[in-house]
Amino acid sequence: MNALPRQKNIAMSEFEKTALNKVVRGNKRAAYDEKTIFEIADSHFLCHLAYVYEGTPIVIPTAYGRKGNTFFVHGSTKNRMMNFLLKNERVSLTITHMDGIVMARSVFHHSFNYRSAVIFGKPSLITDWDEKMEALTLITENIIEGRWDEAREPNEKEMRATSVMAIEMTDASAKIRAEGANDEPEDMNLDVWAGVLPLQVTVGDPVRNDDCKPGLETPQSILQFEFDPK
Amino acid sequence: MNALPRQKNIAMSEFEKTALNKVVRGNKRAAYDEKTIFEIADSHFLCHLAYVYEGTPIVIPTAYGRKGNTFFVHGSTKNRMMNFLLKNERVSLTITHMDGIVMARSVFHHSFNYRSAVIFGKPSLITDWDEKMEALTLITENIIEGRWDEAREPNEKEMRATSVMAIEMTDASAKIRAEGANDEPEDMNLDVWAGVLPLQVTVGDPVRNDDCKPGLETPQSILQFEFDPK
Repeated sequence: MNALPRQKNIAMSEFEKTALNKVVRGNKRAAYDEKTIFEIADSHFLCHLAYVYEGTPIVIPTAYGRKGNTFFVHGSTKNRMMNFLLKNERVSLTITHMDGIVMARSVFHHSFNYRSAVIFGKPSLITDWDEKMEALTLITENIIEGRWDEAREPNEKEMRATSVMAIEMTDASAKIRAEGANDEPEDMNLDVWAGVLPLQVTVGDPVRNDDCKPGLETPQSILQFEFDPK
Repeated sequence: MNALPRQKNIAMSEFEKTALNKVVRGNKRAAYDEKTIFEIADSHFLCHLAYVYEGTPIVIPTAYGRKGNTFFVHGSTKNRMMNFLLKNERVSLTITHMDGIVMARSVFHHSFNYRSAVIFGKPSLITDWDEKMEALTLITENIIEGRWDEAREPNEKEMRATSVMAIEMTDASAKIRAEGANDEPEDMNLDVWAGVLPLQVTVGDPVRNDDCKPGLETPQSILQFEFDPK
């Protein structure tokens, strides 16, 4: 059985380390360069976004898209998250790939292999029609490439019922762990198995709607879909 | 090909709906009963936890364990999250299973199938040695059942380097979507495929550490591990 590769090299920083984005713990696994951050962001479509509601931070999973340094999220105009996000000077959006469970000889050194990015930025509401349509395209295409052109575009009523928010990235950090278990020298001889149990998101066979029009073939966008292709 | 079942019945509420935990959007998918919330919590081990750092909410992925209404998270005593969490009167912890991408005839009705729970509670630091050891056991066993007894227990130095926090659940809500695409009546005749692309976390073959003691067999806890068994 193959051993896991050692931790990937981490490129030079591009974001300045500030009190906000500085990774305090495990900083040898930290990265601040755009390339690493965008690689993590572009291989996922779900983030966890936090807003503060009467002093309590609330975390909500939601889809996102990206264009350059700007991330887009959307929701109903009646969505509490969307309305409260705008009251926050700065929000953060976290993207997490869970790649494996790391089993060490000691409980203490158990860990996960993962790739995660935390993106900080100021939220703003998109009011321009074309920008809003573009942002919705980016969110949709980030989930499943090619789908925007297959489905019916949002109409005026649907556009009015949707809020789209831009989060202009001002700071970000990433953490990556991609290696086997690291134990204390005095534990190396214990009779305890050490290694990694890999985890991966896999895609099942498409499940056609009961009321799907007969004769319609499963489109290419869906047949070729891969989550986080390596 | 099978169609997806209609949305699951949602049991009666047990948590009172408050301004904090009330699901404002999509409330027909909402649940407030402990059974639903604990089913979601007990079939995952990773949550996204938010704390407020100088006015900015920051979301961090972390492992958790549960005993009754209390959730446990841990980290290094030098971990910024752990120290700042304690300054929050109330925090929230979100658990998300991403079960599929829902492809509708209209872009607007695209969605996800998912099970998510948001748990609110007051964080407190565990100082009692035995309680701390029990909480670490619960976190470890929630990740992989049987591992605590296989690995070396934390020693005094490791215990001192670890903070363990209890989050006593006071409110919670869950949202579940588990069905096919729902389109507008006027779109049913469009030549657009509708259905669901299922997603699932799958477990790969265990990857043995290079320096794992020869002759050690892969333990049962690892061989029998399933993520989110149905």
